Amino acid sequence: MAHPIFKIPILVFLFLFTSIPSISSHPFDPLSSLEIQIVTSTVKSKFTNIAQRLTFHYVGIEDPNKPDVLSWVANPRSPPLPRQAFVVVRANKQTHEFIVSLANGKGSIVSEHVYQGTGFPTLTLQEQEEAIEVSLKHQPFISSIEKRGLNISDVVGSAFSIGWYGEAQSETKRIVKVLFFYKESTVNVWLRPIEGIETTVDLDDMVLTELKDIHVSVMPKSEGTEYQASTMRPPFLAETKPILVNQPHGPSFVVRGHTVSWANWDFHLSFDMRVGVVISTASIYDIDQQKKRQVLYRGQISELFVPYQDPTEEWYYRTFMDAGEFGMGSSAVALEPHHDCPSNAMFFDAYHAGQDGTPVKLENAYCMFEKYAGDIAWRHTEAVIPGELIREVRREVSLVIRTITVIGNYDYILDWELKKCGTIKLSVSLTGIMEGKTTTYKHESEVKEEIYGLLVAPNTIGINHDHFITYYLDLDIDGQENSFQKLKLKSFRTDGSTPRKSYWSVVSEEVKKELDARLRPTEPVELHIVNPNKKTAVGNKVGYRLIPGPMAIPLLSEDDYPQIRGSLCDYDIWVTPYNKSEKWAGGMYVDRGHGDKTLTQITEQNRDINNKDIVLWHTIGFHHHPSQDEFPIMPTLTGGFELRPTNFFDRNPILKMRSP
Amino acid sequence: MAHPIFKIPILVFLFLFTSIPSISSHPFDPLSSLEIQIVTSTVKSKFTNIAQRLTFHYVGIEDPNKPDVLSWVANPRSPPLPRQAFVVVRANKQTHEFIVSLANGKGSIVSEHVYQGTGFPTLTLQEQEEAIEVSLKHQPFISSIEKRGLNISDVVGSAFSIGWYGEAQSETKRIVKVLFFYKESTVNVWLRPIEGIETTVDLDDMVLTELKDIHVSVMPKSEGTEYQASTMRPPFLAETKPILVNQPHGPSFVVRGHTVSWANWDFHLSFDMRVGVVISTASIYDIDQQKKRQVLYRGQISELFVPYQDPTEEWYYRTFMDAGEFGMGSSAVALEPHHDCPSNAMFFDAYHAGQDGTPVKLENAYCMFEKYAGDIAWRHTEAVIPGELIREVRREVSLVIRTITVIGNYDYILDWELKKCGTIKLSVSLTGIMEGKTTTYKHESEVKEEIYGLLVAPNTIGINHDHFITYYLDLDIDGQENSFQKLKLKSFRTDGSTPRKSYWSVVSEEVKKELDARLRPTEPVELHIVNPNKKTAVGNKVGYRLIPGPMAIPLLSEDDYPQIRGSLCDYDIWVTPYNKSEKWAGGMYVDRGHGDKTLTQITEQNRDINNKDIVLWHTIGFHHHPSQDEFPIMPTLTGGFELRPTNFFDRNPILKMRSP
Repeated sequence: MAHPIFKIPILVFLFLFTSIPSISSHPFDPLSSLEIQIVTSTVKSKFTNIAQRLTFHYVGIEDPNKPDVLSWVANPRSPPLPRQAFVVVRANKQTHEFIVSLANGKGSIVSEHVYQGTGFPTLTLQEQEEAIEVSLKHQPFISSIEKRGLNISDVVGSAFSIGWYGEAQSETKRIVKVLFFYKESTVNVWLRPIEGIETTVDLDDMVLTELKDIHVSVMPKSEGTEYQASTMRPPFLAETKPILVNQPHGPSFVVRGHTVSWANWDFHLSFDMRVGVVISTASIYDIDQQKKRQVLYRGQISELFVPYQDPTEEWYYRTFMDAGEFGMGSSAVALEPHHDCPSNAMFFDAYHAGQDGTPVKLENAYCMFEKYAGDIAWRHTEAVIPGELIREVRREVSLVIRTITVIGNYDYILDWELKKCGTIKLSVSLTGIMEGKTTTYKHESEVKEEIYGLLVAPNTIGINHDHFITYYLDLDIDGQENSFQKLKLKSFRTDGSTPRKSYWSVVSEEVKKELDARLRPTEPVELHIVNPNKKTAVGNKVGYRLIPGPMAIPLLSEDDYPQIRGSLCDYDIWVTPYNKSEKWAGGMYVDRGHGDKTLTQITEQNRDINNKDIVLWHTIGFHHHPSQDEFPIMPTLTGGFELRPTNFFDRNPILKMRSP
Repeated sequence: MAHPIFKIPILVFLFLFTSIPSISSHPFDPLSSLEIQIVTSTVKSKFTNIAQRLTFHYVGIEDPNKPDVLSWVANPRSPPLPRQAFVVVRANKQTHEFIVSLANGKGSIVSEHVYQGTGFPTLTLQEQEEAIEVSLKHQPFISSIEKRGLNISDVVGSAFSIGWYGEAQSETKRIVKVLFFYKESTVNVWLRPIEGIETTVDLDDMVLTELKDIHVSVMPKSEGTEYQASTMRPPFLAETKPILVNQPHGPSFVVRGHTVSWANWDFHLSFDMRVGVVISTASIYDIDQQKKRQVLYRGQISELFVPYQDPTEEWYYRTFMDAGEFGMGSSAVALEPHHDCPSNAMFFDAYHAGQDGTPVKLENAYCMFEKYAGDIAWRHTEAVIPGELIREVRREVSLVIRTITVIGNYDYILDWELKKCGTIKLSVSLTGIMEGKTTTYKHESEVKEEIYGLLVAPNTIGINHDHFITYYLDLDIDGQENSFQKLKLKSFRTDGSTPRKSYWSVVSEEVKKELDARLRPTEPVELHIVNPNKKTAVGNKVGYRLIPGPMAIPLLSEDDYPQIRGSLCDYDIWVTPYNKSEKWAGGMYVDRGHGDKTLTQITEQNRDINNKDIVLWHTIGFHHHPSQDEFPIMPTLTGGFELRPTNFFDRNPILKMRSP
């Protein structure tokens, strides 16, 4: 089932939109298809006389101010907040930012601004396609392909962002490299690269500026690279019998507009073309206090940094920033019912703006489902009371919101999981195809040099790389003013009054400034976001604890350009005071950006974060040294982290959960 | 459904046992009820004239020699191996070890030995109960209870092992402390301790040797401590609608005796009174090689060390070694169908020996079920090929084996999960009741001293503690001779031929000796167990990788007695050459042991581990600083680790898994 709102004909929708405070008027509701049209028409009208291309790179909701959002959430029957859109276009080789008002269903420009800093906006899907097309039609390129004895009709391309390597801004052009792959006899093109040949395309002019025909590479065999079931021959893996999840009475969540209620949780669920799923204004109902209590104002991916570790000519620049360069939302793929999400899932469509400003529908862009994996929420068997059998068990049923983003070869399965106990679990699962590099080696024994990865098949190296994912988590724990506390677990010697010599205890440190919050834990520490103004009945500060995810130490030199741009992995944990404009761990304009507006610079302001509205940023990381078991498609590898209530409740909030 | 074998009447079983090579004759099959009877009768016949108690502390299978087991597994139609039992009894204040042969269905003693080292065997459940009873009937104790205005009939006790604090072995008696709790108006006795009063009981003599009546403690209110649904009053947490897992055609696993086949896995599933579930002789079918390949000879918990962090008089000694002191198997609780394991689970009973040698049946001691949590085994959507929609998704269905051990207040949910891709995932989930300490404080603002934990309710402190769990993993990767490799990820500077300045690469180190294998990773490293004698077609060593679990740095002083006994947490990773007698990370006899036969001493032999039959030991840890959300019963906290094939297969072993 698609999200119901998209089934309402446009006229009805217009009516809803313009005349009554509709149920879908949450301030963070994504722009509707109609709103996208209004916004982009409004912006286009500013550029009637330009000779060059006008391309839309971002169209999304302009967040209202936080106090306004919070008052609306406190009283959702009040009139909807004025809706505004934020737009980034490229025109006249400049990056233009607009804020467009949508008052009364009409577009009007509230502000416009030409961005002067380093870096360029997110690539559009269409310009990537055009850059490929320009290359494939370039006669010298065709000749180069023919020279290799390859068939031009079997050549496909992919546009690669190229990072920044110290050039002055005046010399930094908005260019990509197009690399080529061979689809003859396999769809697994990532393992059939045509190396030694590349084009450079200027995206603003949409012209090929360079063709490099460096060398003729080996073409690995296509045999064994296919992953489509339709191509497989026996023997097959022994099949297991069907296992079905069903909910005879339907799901327990209620979706109104983009607002979701499930069990004790209420939250807003949205989708953004840059980051994908956004969870906001999430609160949990406290049955003891008999009220909803705020937990998360906004949570989303901020950036995903993927540096490859081959420094040679054709690979060194592959150091992607997937959210800012390619768009985690616009690259979300349609989820396949029953497979990408289980049979009890509800699917949601989303809209984003195409390059020309027209709305593009992403079908099944995300899904939501209740999960029961056989796990236990809490239990105890009591054996100490003679003659009594005491056993209480509660099953763990949680709510999952999933989106899958595919950036070229890699598939990222991105889950939010909400538990009734108040825990929020975020996880990232990596699958898809590894990026193969061709080699003349067919056997490991021939390899006498650094190959920057592993020989995963004859003529194919899986190249070493990392994935660093930074989440932006604007926690508002029972209110906006929060503090970040490090609870350091320290060893102490005893006074000798018992035979015990030592113990550990907690030394709590309330972190006052941004720079002191930056952390890569090497000593035992618990990380709490607390509300110092709210205490439990026995006087503990209410809070949530971060149970960190896989933390990978970055291994690039500090002075290396990719590391400057990707400094989000310098620390695993960062805390900043809330500032509506600070959402981007790698900077807002990361394509070819100079890394001059990252979390490093943001936190160098060293602002107060004590008893303030603060944002937690958590970077999780995976070093990936490929293995053959991942050829030709990778079994999923999962990592994640938890935000867990810690003295948030006076007692176990699911104590009074009845067993079904 | 119970395990079928237990439904066969004894005569039939006898027939099976004595006359034909039965399907249940795997060398690691646990002792049957009948075998336990034969074994214990045989041992009892040696002690006909003793004046004192004869107590059975361990009765289990004596592992045959590994080469014999492996040849049997290679040819399971060959005659069963001779069956032997290993027995530990306490008699005449001595620890006796026996090996008893079960040839021809008769018991005969193969060897006997009086253990002379430090430490005592696992406590029996019965002697713990007797120690409590002796205390509760002790008149001065009753007077002490009455003095407090408490009702003796509402007092329950629990026996606490007391560790070792430097006494000479000659002075180390087999004693426990009995602590008391009040069951008036709540079953949650752990939060209603009667502190200030304790007894000491000599278990060999079963006499109370000391009553300490130190002070009269506060009794926290019972209100709010109950967790039984039957006691709850509204409001309840909003209920979610039913979610059902079912398998219309039944489960996909086949159980023959104690041998399990599921998907591409074959393994033996057993249960031991000291450690609980044991997975052994596990192999995976390789569809490319068209044969079964060995992965794990034996995997089990070795020890679970739980030091509390309150060094004061009544708490300092609480530094439990749950496997060796209490028995993780004998303390396994009956699993509740539909709740502890999902509706599609199969349940298995187990037998262990009671203190007097009679078989004790543990109903539903462990369960096995197929799990589908909505996860994805692998997927890819290919967007780079114009005009084609390519999307392949495979669902993740895995096999879980679960047991739950309750040691007093704590419930440990212990899962083994086998995946079709070859991954073995082990997880530990902690729930149950925290150990409460009484205090006069009712509010945090009154606390001006170290309380060694957190005030979780008025008059109740949750005491800081750790859980360190060591797994014994005798991996045999495609054969017995294996090596342990550290793949260190190191930063390198480039030669400057491209604008890139740095990259990381893998520097592989084959670890030669035990001492060099001990590791607490602080630098990026991949940990592989490889078979250096077997290579993939392109020449990589076949292997498995450990993706470590939560690693907690121990915080006790090195010279502190609990740390000496619990040195298993000095490192997260240890590797030893296989030796049938080396299974116990904390030593074989840990109750009151001196920590003189732990992994520390085992590895100090510094034997060769390169291209040898080796064992991986992995310690995962949790520092637990309690929180109010865990009162009066703890929402589950889970941690785990993975063993993942890494160049074990020539390619993705589930590539040819069909989508259902």
